Amino acid sequence: MSKIRVAMVGGGIGGFIGEIHRMAMRLDERYELVAGALSSDPERAIQSGNEIGLARPYGTWQELFDAEQGNIDCVSIVTPNDSHAEIATAAIQSGFHVVLDKPMTRTLSEAIALAEIASNSPQLLAMTYTYTGYPMIREMKSRIANGDIGAVRNVSVRYRQGWLSDSIENEGQKQALWRTNPDLCGAGALGDIGSHAEQLSRFVTGQCIQSVRGDVHSVVPGRKVDDHASVQMKLSEGVIGDLVVSQVSTGERNNVEVNVYGDKGAMIWSHSEPDVLTALDQDGIEHRYHCSVNRAPSGHPAGFIEAFANIYRACADVMQGGEGIIIDEREGLASMKFIDAVLRSQETQSWEEL
Amino acid sequence: MSKIRVAMVGGGIGGFIGEIHRMAMRLDERYELVAGALSSDPERAIQSGNEIGLARPYGTWQELFDAEQGNIDCVSIVTPNDSHAEIATAAIQSGFHVVLDKPMTRTLSEAIALAEIASNSPQLLAMTYTYTGYPMIREMKSRIANGDIGAVRNVSVRYRQGWLSDSIENEGQKQALWRTNPDLCGAGALGDIGSHAEQLSRFVTGQCIQSVRGDVHSVVPGRKVDDHASVQMKLSEGVIGDLVVSQVSTGERNNVEVNVYGDKGAMIWSHSEPDVLTALDQDGIEHRYHCSVNRAPSGHPAGFIEAFANIYRACADVMQGGEGIIIDEREGLASMKFIDAVLRSQETQSWEEL
Amino acid sequence: MSKIRVAMVGGGIGGFIGEIHRMAMRLDERYELVAGALSSDPERAIQSGNEIGLARPYGTWQELFDAEQGNIDCVSIVTPNDSHAEIATAAIQSGFHVVLDKPMTRTLSEAIALAEIASNSPQLLAMTYTYTGYPMIREMKSRIANGDIGAVRNVSVRYRQGWLSDSIENEGQKQALWRTNPDLCGAGALGDIGSHAEQLSRFVTGQCIQSVRGDVHSVVPGRKVDDHASVQMKLSEGVIGDLVVSQVSTGERNNVEVNVYGDKGAMIWSHSEPDVLTALDQDGIEHRYHCSVNRAPSGHPAGFIEAFANIYRACADVMQGGEGIIIDEREGLASMKFIDAVLRSQETQSWEEL
Amino acid sequence: MSKIRVAMVGGGIGGFIGEIHRMAMRLDERYELVAGALSSDPERAIQSGNEIGLARPYGTWQELFDAEQGNIDCVSIVTPNDSHAEIATAAIQSGFHVVLDKPMTRTLSEAIALAEIASNSPQLLAMTYTYTGYPMIREMKSRIANGDIGAVRNVSVRYRQGWLSDSIENEGQKQALWRTNPDLCGAGALGDIGSHAEQLSRFVTGQCIQSVRGDVHSVVPGRKVDDHASVQMKLSEGVIGDLVVSQVSTGERNNVEVNVYGDKGAMIWSHSEPDVLTALDQDGIEHRYHCSVNRAPSGHPAGFIEAFANIYRACADVMQGGEGIIIDEREGLASMKFIDAVLRSQETQSWEEL
Repeated sequence: MSKIRVAMVGGGIGGFIGEIHRMAMRLDERYELVAGALSSDPERAIQSGNEIGLARPYGTWQELFDAEQGNIDCVSIVTPNDSHAEIATAAIQSGFHVVLDKPMTRTLSEAIALAEIASNSPQLLAMTYTYTGYPMIREMKSRIANGDIGAVRNVSVRYRQGWLSDSIENEGQKQALWRTNPDLCGAGALGDIGSHAEQLSRFVTGQCIQSVRGDVHSVVPGRKVDDHASVQMKLSEGVIGDLVVSQVSTGERNNVEVNVYGDKGAMIWSHSEPDVLTALDQDGIEHRYHCSVNRAPSGHPAGFIEAFANIYRACADVMQGGEGIIIDEREGLASMKFIDAVLRSQETQSWEEL
Repeated sequence: MSKIRVAMVGGGIGGFIGEIHRMAMRLDERYELVAGALSSDPERAIQSGNEIGLARPYGTWQELFDAEQGNIDCVSIVTPNDSHAEIATAAIQSGFHVVLDKPMTRTLSEAIALAEIASNSPQLLAMTYTYTGYPMIREMKSRIANGDIGAVRNVSVRYRQGWLSDSIENEGQKQALWRTNPDLCGAGALGDIGSHAEQLSRFVTGQCIQSVRGDVHSVVPGRKVDDHASVQMKLSEGVIGDLVVSQVSTGERNNVEVNVYGDKGAMIWSHSEPDVLTALDQDGIEHRYHCSVNRAPSGHPAGFIEAFANIYRACADVMQGGEGIIIDEREGLASMKFIDAVLRSQETQSWEEL
Repeated sequence: MSKIRVAMVGGGIGGFIGEIHRMAMRLDERYELVAGALSSDPERAIQSGNEIGLARPYGTWQELFDAEQGNIDCVSIVTPNDSHAEIATAAIQSGFHVVLDKPMTRTLSEAIALAEIASNSPQLLAMTYTYTGYPMIREMKSRIANGDIGAVRNVSVRYRQGWLSDSIENEGQKQALWRTNPDLCGAGALGDIGSHAEQLSRFVTGQCIQSVRGDVHSVVPGRKVDDHASVQMKLSEGVIGDLVVSQVSTGERNNVEVNVYGDKGAMIWSHSEPDVLTALDQDGIEHRYHCSVNRAPSGHPAGFIEAFANIYRACADVMQGGEGIIIDEREGLASMKFIDAVLRSQETQSWEEL
Repeated sequence: MSKIRVAMVGGGIGGFIGEIHRMAMRLDERYELVAGALSSDPERAIQSGNEIGLARPYGTWQELFDAEQGNIDCVSIVTPNDSHAEIATAAIQSGFHVVLDKPMTRTLSEAIALAEIASNSPQLLAMTYTYTGYPMIREMKSRIANGDIGAVRNVSVRYRQGWLSDSIENEGQKQALWRTNPDLCGAGALGDIGSHAEQLSRFVTGQCIQSVRGDVHSVVPGRKVDDHASVQMKLSEGVIGDLVVSQVSTGERNNVEVNVYGDKGAMIWSHSEPDVLTALDQDGIEHRYHCSVNRAPSGHPAGFIEAFANIYRACADVMQGGEGIIIDEREGLASMKFIDAVLRSQETQSWEEL
């Protein structure tokens, strides 16, 4: 099957999310990244494009969209929220599919306009709500839709991070700078991780949120956006929701937990064990299902491929004259001696030296 | 930096390990897979090469090695164990670096000969002992070498799988067929997962195994190789080892656990939480360190990139006219309405509809 | 030291909480249970008293209080909520210390009156908020008070049960009958487990709750009291609180979780691992402290004494002619043979039979 | 039912195991502790007896056995191993039931003689192998006997402690002194915790151990007994066993793990979650069963009663003029205000002050 020709907007050197998107595209070889405008600074955009070996780097996305009509199929947009609306609109109007990082836009009115345009275009606007990519979140959705826990009564989502516990935006931390600047991000924690949390509550239950009551705080003094909120929710079909998002939960890395309770059982997922889906039955027995549909063979947890890639990366380092931990023929030989000695010891029923 | 030009031997359609190696190579873009002899059946080898879009597929590795002298840098060998020695030897003699799946060879004598050749060649022979690729295994090795737990006293490794609990080799299961045929694999559980387990015991402690006493079994009636073993070990520096490997531990997926005890503390790693390294101090307090050097930003567990890739894969499916779960503009808009309604509810201090 | 002479009101045969209180009193031998009015039905009260071997059983608590002036020191009250106020008031006025199950009374006005009386009496009114008895909850309180996590920002408590997921009050389940009857219990989930949850939020933070906003539900159709609530809270010192209590979380047994976040770290406790207190530091490292101040020697988890008691109970059963799993001399001898054979095998360096 | 009249030998002030046995006896009120010879030092024996309020303290067990013929039913023996044989033999010959701490005796020959005597007496000799008292160990035994995991293939037990990681016997630590003195204890780790481990392997599988091969070490320099061992085992019905016991696993508190694998599934129990039994089925799904037969109502983990007892103990302290954390009427009132305010806020749909 032919590969999808894709251009990236944003995602230059220094950020992290661009490279995540690129690795994700490479893993299954369905995309070919051929062009990009990787920064809002044209010079830096070209430089970043060259650094990652892009065939056709551009200084601006406008130039890119003009020049690439018909040459690319899809644009991946990984810029700060304030430019989402303009770039995505232009991309769709240029006839490109769009893959867009969440949240959709900076403001609701921008989102309404963009959704209108996207809905009336043949092109796809697809959003990268990361958690929907976890196999066990999809399994959770599927089992709940299938009636495994009966009628859903309550969905509870908590997403806690601690990285904004201090006012690091005042120390120049790049991520913090734009994610706490309302002109760039719109909402703070609600936009960044609240969008994940609320989307999960809808995704796994299949219900929509009808009304909300939030207790919203800017905990860190001087912060210009919300960094902590708890929200009471009413979803369709009478489902009751509760949601907590926080970026000032000191010590938390990326703690996402989703609990759904129905009248016949419950389903629980936690980011700390992403390959596991726990079901509670009416007798209180926990059933832990493990991911079986991922890329690695059964029983290999998420991360197996990355572990393998670490080995190949170290090999590449050494092959190209650098440093790296590699396991060479001496290690391989040691294993063979071990196997041989164990089998000899089984023969002799005594200790055997290697 | 230029990419390493690599050819693969073995790893055709139907197996799984070849695609794992290919994904691992793609993740960091350090390799360019340009050639391959993906099967021992020449016709199937060419067909598999074409299916994965290989530039230069060959029917046999001999042809490949002859033709690619000077055109490739490295050969990745993912065939059954019985052909490792011959292919790796030829690859090295052809001037290629070699990346070789474990165990090194089928027999010890083959391993001795191959190690001799590799040691006397400028090329690299690197083995893919998967677990050494996990960041927290490397962290464990580093902390122990650093003296965090004092002088090592005991290393304990258990590697349990259940996939060979029944005699599935008699039902034609492809993996089981060669992995239980001594002519192809050499040892059974000891070769397949025992090599991982014993290598881990050496890798994390920095000691070598000096003598062993094994209790080796073929638990499933009629099986021609070992499928379960417990081994008592003496390592250098007086370290005492115990090791259990089993492929007949029904219900276990890929349960690898490594415990190292020193006179000042302990370190524990489990495959079930690959991103965590647990240290025990002398007061019995557990300190759980989380992976911070992986590709994703801090707090995102192993598997984050694969989750992201799942999203991109589904997008590709839909863009090319197929089916897939994608999160479109309606979802993006719903999130924006949620954020807006929560912020309004904070203003009005009451419930707000979306 | 002399034992405290205690009488119990409520807690007759058929309920469970009375026996829990009695076992708790026996464990440390600080109390002598000498009298009781164990049921609101006088006949049943006497009968229950005799069954548990009470020295002085009474038909009513009024008789008991009259007769026992000067003979007892303390009354333990384990009746349904609606009688708490009257009985506790009379007990204090009779000069007895009072140990009272939570919640204090059925209504707030009763509680105000009772608190007034208790505060003006030399006697103690002590409430059995169970979770304050867990050593690691006390450790959590102490460490937070000590500044381990800096200034507290957020406390989050979730207490979920599933036992009222169905309308079992309509099937005559005794506990459900009174705990869903507002005339007997007052509030439902809020009174029964909400009181635990909110008390924990105050206990561990040392702050008081100043205002609340609740989303309260009776999820099961026809239920007369609340069975599910989420509550947003404002505590003193600007601490933000969120709390969920539910008795309709199907499959949950008794899932209590408390998270406290400060500007320097976090503390987390879960009922599922009651002997563990987890601290998160600013670098995201988890430190798991284990209970070291309980009755059993270090390293023996909660439940060790109960396990021991199970053995003694089985012995008693067998000594008195009944059935029970006991470990007799044949087992003891088998162990000795094992030890001997292992030591012999170390001598001979070979297998030894037992 | 009448209580069993019991006398205790050993277990005076300063040790811990005596009080564990006494608490275990008190919990269910099946025993009445009426006499004791609590120390091998007569003066200290009397003093200890008085301190714990014993009705009839004796200086020696010989005096006790003579004087109490017909007045007691049972003797509980909690002395060091070297006196087990003599005391237990005398107790049985005096017509008393015996409850005896493990291991049975110091030497195998003593055990053979004692077992002979016990078997030919009508009295019971019951041993307190603690782990057999855990409800989920009994559940594990029962489910395996019931065929839940098919034919058993492998049992693996690991029991690790760290308390003897240093030579604390040379610093006068009382427990270490006798437990590392072969004249008092016989074997070291093998006797103390090896007996637990090997008994568990037999208890849960229902098989007996037929032969063993041990790798036994005294890791701490100068130690006179074994402190670490790994043992390969052959059990009846072809069951393969592996066992590790260690008292020099620095940082481990009391880490007991039992895994049993059959041809249809597996069962796993860990002391770190004593109320949970995990079953693995052939599809690798984990089923976690929670204890439902303990003294506390369903969902309350082991330790609930001890938590309750902590509350009563603190109340006793305060009632008798001492210090203690108690939860008084002010706390009870605060809860009632909370409940009232939440219900008001549900009425007004707004924040309510307490």
